[in-house]
Amino acid sequence: MNEKDIAIDIDTQELFKKAKDEEVETTWDRQKLMKKPCGFGEKGVCCKICAMGPCRISPVAGRGAQKGICGATADVIVARNFARMVAGGAAAHSDHGRDIAHTLYMASKDGNYKVRDEEKLLRIAKEWDVETEDRDIYDIAHEVAEISLNEFGKPFGKLKFLDRAPEERNKTWEENDIKPRAIDREIATIMHSTHMGCTADAESLINMSMRTSLSDGWGGSMIGTELSDILFGTPIPRETEANLGVLEEGKVNIVLHGHEPTLSEMIVLASEDPELKKLAEEVGADGINLAGMCCTANEVTMRHGIKIAGNFHQQELAVLTGAVEAVIVDVQCIMPSLASLSDCYHTKFITTSPKARITGADHMEFDEEKAYESAKTIVREAIENFKNRENEKIFIPKGKSHATVGYSLESIGDQLTRVSNSYIESNSKFKPLGDCILSGVLRGAVGVVGCNNSKVKHDYGHVELMKELIANDVIVVTTGCAAQAAAKAGLMSKDAKELAGLGLKTVCELVDIPPVIHMGSCVDISRILTLVKEVSEYTGVDMDKLPVTGSAPEWMSEKAIAIGTYVVSSGINTWLGVTPPVTGGPEVVDILTNKMEDMVGAKFFIEEDPIKAAKQMIDKIEEKRNELGI
Amino acid sequence: MNEKDIAIDIDTQELFKKAKDEEVETTWDRQKLMKKPCGFGEKGVCCKICAMGPCRISPVAGRGAQKGICGATADVIVARNFARMVAGGAAAHSDHGRDIAHTLYMASKDGNYKVRDEEKLLRIAKEWDVETEDRDIYDIAHEVAEISLNEFGKPFGKLKFLDRAPEERNKTWEENDIKPRAIDREIATIMHSTHMGCTADAESLINMSMRTSLSDGWGGSMIGTELSDILFGTPIPRETEANLGVLEEGKVNIVLHGHEPTLSEMIVLASEDPELKKLAEEVGADGINLAGMCCTANEVTMRHGIKIAGNFHQQELAVLTGAVEAVIVDVQCIMPSLASLSDCYHTKFITTSPKARITGADHMEFDEEKAYESAKTIVREAIENFKNRENEKIFIPKGKSHATVGYSLESIGDQLTRVSNSYIESNSKFKPLGDCILSGVLRGAVGVVGCNNSKVKHDYGHVELMKELIANDVIVVTTGCAAQAAAKAGLMSKDAKELAGLGLKTVCELVDIPPVIHMGSCVDISRILTLVKEVSEYTGVDMDKLPVTGSAPEWMSEKAIAIGTYVVSSGINTWLGVTPPVTGGPEVVDILTNKMEDMVGAKFFIEEDPIKAAKQMIDKIEEKRNELGI
Repeated sequence: MNEKDIAIDIDTQELFKKAKDEEVETTWDRQKLMKKPCGFGEKGVCCKICAMGPCRISPVAGRGAQKGICGATADVIVARNFARMVAGGAAAHSDHGRDIAHTLYMASKDGNYKVRDEEKLLRIAKEWDVETEDRDIYDIAHEVAEISLNEFGKPFGKLKFLDRAPEERNKTWEENDIKPRAIDREIATIMHSTHMGCTADAESLINMSMRTSLSDGWGGSMIGTELSDILFGTPIPRETEANLGVLEEGKVNIVLHGHEPTLSEMIVLASEDPELKKLAEEVGADGINLAGMCCTANEVTMRHGIKIAGNFHQQELAVLTGAVEAVIVDVQCIMPSLASLSDCYHTKFITTSPKARITGADHMEFDEEKAYESAKTIVREAIENFKNRENEKIFIPKGKSHATVGYSLESIGDQLTRVSNSYIESNSKFKPLGDCILSGVLRGAVGVVGCNNSKVKHDYGHVELMKELIANDVIVVTTGCAAQAAAKAGLMSKDAKELAGLGLKTVCELVDIPPVIHMGSCVDISRILTLVKEVSEYTGVDMDKLPVTGSAPEWMSEKAIAIGTYVVSSGINTWLGVTPPVTGGPEVVDILTNKMEDMVGAKFFIEEDPIKAAKQMIDKIEEKRNELGI
Repeated sequence: MNEKDIAIDIDTQELFKKAKDEEVETTWDRQKLMKKPCGFGEKGVCCKICAMGPCRISPVAGRGAQKGICGATADVIVARNFARMVAGGAAAHSDHGRDIAHTLYMASKDGNYKVRDEEKLLRIAKEWDVETEDRDIYDIAHEVAEISLNEFGKPFGKLKFLDRAPEERNKTWEENDIKPRAIDREIATIMHSTHMGCTADAESLINMSMRTSLSDGWGGSMIGTELSDILFGTPIPRETEANLGVLEEGKVNIVLHGHEPTLSEMIVLASEDPELKKLAEEVGADGINLAGMCCTANEVTMRHGIKIAGNFHQQELAVLTGAVEAVIVDVQCIMPSLASLSDCYHTKFITTSPKARITGADHMEFDEEKAYESAKTIVREAIENFKNRENEKIFIPKGKSHATVGYSLESIGDQLTRVSNSYIESNSKFKPLGDCILSGVLRGAVGVVGCNNSKVKHDYGHVELMKELIANDVIVVTTGCAAQAAAKAGLMSKDAKELAGLGLKTVCELVDIPPVIHMGSCVDISRILTLVKEVSEYTGVDMDKLPVTGSAPEWMSEKAIAIGTYVVSSGINTWLGVTPPVTGGPEVVDILTNKMEDMVGAKFFIEEDPIKAAKQMIDKIEEKRNELGI
């Protein structure tokens, strides 16, 4: 494997080469050693759900087993596996959202966690009929938190945030019986229905997958986003830099990696503590340099402008610089390999969550009750590790790009207000965006989200797709590892308007935004849902009628499948750049890429080539425009 | 495959032969076609959790991949897969328990669902501090139901039924941090922690599996059992018959298959409806003959003495008799093959639950709001199908055995009270049982539970194990498909005392019980937990000190893994007769079969030979007796 084959950016290539030189194992080595993936598993026709098996369906009809031992067909096996991916993904976001709600529940005026966006709290309180008059803001916060917590397990009723979606969308969900009840109930129920001897009907399994996925998008994720904003502030535009070049040789480098801002927010605070700053000086460093990785990076860059070290496939590379004192992680997308890898360098690999212990890591449990002290202890550990650096092993690549980040729904609204004619009467802050789309200045919008996947050249799918889209006057909104790919490629710089088509370029200039908009972490795809809903309300058509699509060019995690499914269920066509393990079930493929359109007005597209995918998306956008008569 | 190789009972053998003669496919054919199972899957070292894979670990160190692409080791992969089996099993029981709680919530004096065991309701109300004085029994029922429903999703606190366990057991759970919070939360959380990039530590994953499993045993299952008793009556000893010979040629045969009594109880009522009885006569039948299959059989035989047609591996054979008008199913352990199989006969295969639709079945959704009418419609469909019988295809084997069933905890207590000297002062109804164990009249007790599995000769594991145990003065309690195996083998007849050792035989005579005690369906393993806890309280030692063990000789479902894990976590050593997919993870094997003993006082044993397993259990029982000094 040549470094040019694995990644598009030079930082990654250089550190990949360093790994080779130092004979240190990375994900690319493990992938090479894995050889060709199991064909049964890749097609989704391997069933491990009961112990009569494992069963696997022969790809050739008439040769070998065409059914599992219980009689499950290939389609049933594929659909059950798909449903369980949705369950895994929704569970990850549920558990994340719940933790944020618990944090809001413990927030207090004098505590470590405070209410930072009172306006948003009051808005949601009003949305949920929580009394706000003459009440202490923390009383309101605790009531909102408790209502949120009950969204995960209430015995009766549907999710509250579904009411945010357009009325027509709600009707579609009702007709398909996919309005989720409590979030965790949907997860338990789909795990039950995919148990041996329960549902054996592909369409029913996909239907359940849609319901479960909606409990993520309009449930766990939305709660995660909204309550994080209340606790840590709703993001506003900020300047930052991205790529491994943000590490600084003279400073104590701490990489924050994982997902939940509950930890990372406290680390940000702790890194500014005078006592710790002094300690950093004492150990001979020029200060403390925090850098984010994966969704934690998105959370802290959106709210504090903390620099982005990289995305999923760069986590090992950060350690490989030899200049990172600690990688501090909480949950999700953390390669277990960091444990043995960090043994090859002085880097401390610190796990903090009881939900994600890793063999070989230093486990320093983050205690939310004593959050600040806990964070300080962890940061201290990093600082004290500065002395253990091995200078001969240090190599920090130079590459980094400038990016403007922090586009929450609210800040997009504010940004748009700047270009509104103040004489125009409209209740919607999103009128300018809607008008741009209606008039054709923008042809449409695409959400580009998701992971890195060793099956795809690192960031290639993200960046090529985005470039092609913006060149064609399609504005891109992005989250997760896709957002970081954009930031690193310079697409979040305002200068990137030069890569945009004339319409989009004009919009970028007028509204003062880059052509690719950073909307946050993976749970913040809920921001994208709400944005589409705002445009839907302004234009008066349901979400599935708008010239917008979703895409996950390099997805790898179950969360991405849950996300894709709720995005489609919300009426937004979604392109996957990595083929999901469903091709062994022709009926499942037909439902996902065809029949879902009849159910919810959108479907999945599978296209591994980002340029082809972009063209397909633009065609679809034009189709929607034609249907709208715009 | 010869019929003698696949099963021990003649009914099964004869119908297996009929299937061959008629060239109709059964599970044994599919197993043969499947050939050798995938070695990676069987060892648990295949990971499909993210789309960078599927990954598989080479069994030979130094040759091929030793880690997944993310860096997960064989142990991490195995432990995650194990944890997800626990999640699947716990979810099945959670969803079952929740449905029963919803049914109790809708119970009313004049409705289809009523409170049948007021005493039990009041007992649980008291246990949960629900006000009972001067209240309508249905108000109390609804409050108990609502509290139960909140056990699945409450944001704070631990499960209520944990308080039933001995204080010492609770301490052990606390020390290991495995006291479950809300049931569905544990399922969501473990699905999260097993998501890509979360927990990568075998011990932590097994620890979480224990917590999740306890939310089944002392949560979903216990709620399922207790509230079913309130709704449908707590079982008392009854006479019944078991095996396919219970089908009657002249009658409309309806096989009730699945799990939740909400449906089957109404079918039982409907089958006694004069209008439907008349209809049966009109179509030329001698009446309606209900017969149960799998856990539904256990539910209705325990409460009504409905005959048992068979267990898991006989579901297809019932259709093969050509004499079954309808197989009515709800959820779990239903072979999807019944759809195509029933097409070869006149049998209607009727699915009723939105949680378990099956392609090719007649779906007649059971509406709990109009339960009785719904049940009547379904039974009518069966009766009207009588005319479609093809007489040349009918063959009902003759074999059936007599059995005494219906041993709830309460009825065991009552039975034991009969032999108590009324002058003895003891608060425990279970003193005679405790005394028999303490004195050595009984050496101990073993729970034999679980499924059938095509890897084991049908019922062989169950029956051989039980025979060996009772011959050695070990009393057997049983549920699920194991219970049905015992019933069919005559071990639940009171005459079976002749197969028992002298001590057990004497107990059987005095207490008037068979040596193998039918305690219900799979969720009713919660009855066994409570029984062990009663003996623990009487003897004053924690559950792990008692000479009792658990076993699942022919398990196949994820529920069995959840059950095994909560039984072990409750301090009861458990033997598995089918090797679980863990052998590729040496650390996981060590935790399950060794280290768990240090954590919770019990562990797993894996032994495929039932006679050897029996000997090991007896040795363990003697070891426990020695430690107790009895």
